[in-house]
Amino acid sequence: MKFYGALEAGGTKMVLAVIDEEGTVQKRVSMPTLTPAETMPGMIDFFRGSPIVALGIGSFGPLDLNPRSETFGYITATPKLAWRNYPLLEEFTKQLGVPAALDTDVNGAALAESVLGAAKGLESCLYVTVGTGIGGGLIIHGQPVHGLVHPEIGHIPVTPLPNDPMPGGICPYHGACLEGMASGPAIEKRWGVSAKELPDDHPAWDLESGYLSQLCVSAMLSFSPEKIILGGGVMQKKFLLPMIREKTVRSLKGYVSHPAVEAGLTDYITEPGLDTASGIMGAWLLARQAEKLAQPNHRESI
Amino acid sequence: MKFYGALEAGGTKMVLAVIDEEGTVQKRVSMPTLTPAETMPGMIDFFRGSPIVALGIGSFGPLDLNPRSETFGYITATPKLAWRNYPLLEEFTKQLGVPAALDTDVNGAALAESVLGAAKGLESCLYVTVGTGIGGGLIIHGQPVHGLVHPEIGHIPVTPLPNDPMPGGICPYHGACLEGMASGPAIEKRWGVSAKELPDDHPAWDLESGYLSQLCVSAMLSFSPEKIILGGGVMQKKFLLPMIREKTVRSLKGYVSHPAVEAGLTDYITEPGLDTASGIMGAWLLARQAEKLAQPNHRESI
Repeated sequence: MKFYGALEAGGTKMVLAVIDEEGTVQKRVSMPTLTPAETMPGMIDFFRGSPIVALGIGSFGPLDLNPRSETFGYITATPKLAWRNYPLLEEFTKQLGVPAALDTDVNGAALAESVLGAAKGLESCLYVTVGTGIGGGLIIHGQPVHGLVHPEIGHIPVTPLPNDPMPGGICPYHGACLEGMASGPAIEKRWGVSAKELPDDHPAWDLESGYLSQLCVSAMLSFSPEKIILGGGVMQKKFLLPMIREKTVRSLKGYVSHPAVEAGLTDYITEPGLDTASGIMGAWLLARQAEKLAQPNHRESI
Repeated sequence: MKFYGALEAGGTKMVLAVIDEEGTVQKRVSMPTLTPAETMPGMIDFFRGSPIVALGIGSFGPLDLNPRSETFGYITATPKLAWRNYPLLEEFTKQLGVPAALDTDVNGAALAESVLGAAKGLESCLYVTVGTGIGGGLIIHGQPVHGLVHPEIGHIPVTPLPNDPMPGGICPYHGACLEGMASGPAIEKRWGVSAKELPDDHPAWDLESGYLSQLCVSAMLSFSPEKIILGGGVMQKKFLLPMIREKTVRSLKGYVSHPAVEAGLTDYITEPGLDTASGIMGAWLLARQAEKLAQPNHRESI
């Protein structure tokens, strides 16, 4: 049996697991994200404790994912200053001596959903987590999308809704971008109560589903994913999904002609298939890709 | 020497070419797009007149590009009623007896730009034509993106600018979507003069570059293409590009950290490298893919 290291590197905590080749989690710990000097040694020790053949990392960002760049594998302009310009991938490769792969946490989750979860068998999906922030991972042609940098779909511009008492938003960069309007903190700032405590019939949810439907419309028209998966803390309010679907269908105005739209997007805009495990399973899949890429006879395009 | 058929199927005219394996156009004609009964026989005759080994078609849409669908290769819900639900790909395959491939006109153009033009050597690009309508083609991981349907990025929502005298837009589906605000007809409707006749210092261009920068911002944050190529009639106003770049940088507010942004996006938001030939050369590349896919020993994922 082969073992893989999987790391979900979050801004507040690190989740580490050793997962076997069948996808069974053998060991799993979490530790707070302090500085690299404080947090890296414990992580290295954890992975050294098992005979892993490769490591996969889904990390908070932004990340440099361009293999031709001198700072490939670095965490770049993060507001977490201790981790800014930190060579995360290189440190692990050097210390562990196994092949390793790095992607954004949300690209990892999207990959897991596309291989094992709600988008299983599809070539493309968008995975978005709506919580403290809004982040999105994107799979197209079966592989995570990087491009110039990597998707930051949480920050796309949205149009303020007419009845929004906080039309300026709260994003420190963009004000009224999606995250600035629809993240957990935006909801709390707008209504003075946390999203969790707002009753189900509060007007907050009409706005929230309105902004998230703008995301869905924009995604469907821009790159036409085969599935949109919405997860994260805010989406625990299960009544949001049908509201988002309905507003998305309404906004498309019949322009996208497809059975999924005619069916009210019920199977199209969905919750994650892996619940909260998509992050760590994404890291496992990245580890498996790293192993394959390191084999001498791998083809350039896996 | 091998020859390929290339068809750029537009809503008003068809451009047909026979192109050799080195990419040299051997023959080229155009004919008006009437009904299938009127237009198909002439096109079939043209291609029959040369020993082509495969045919590539870049077509107006919407198209069904899902190989698992019963109406794969059809033009679907087009407003050009004579072509609605027309099995374009099947008709050519049946009549010509050679492998054929179909994609949207703009995906074809994007493919040509990514292989031969402004995005040569890159894995991804967005190609957008701004004219009578606004359409976009998308290449990711070196291949055109289809997904659920195919990108229709001309219809993404935009936020009306405060000084716009026509904030409702003119798109019959969405009103104030990108096409409804920034296409040639939108400009003409807004100012009562055609885009061509408007002087370079007219306030129209401030609005136009504003809306097109919203497209660029949304694309960069959503799927992070390695290049954005803007073509079409409206973009003949060469002073628009620098205005769009500047507004895009300003709207990103430093959030996307990359040398291309620091360089003012000069090499990033660009004009087409193939001028007006991207459409027909895209069809040629599709023909070559069709030939490869038809070979008995091709791999499933080219």
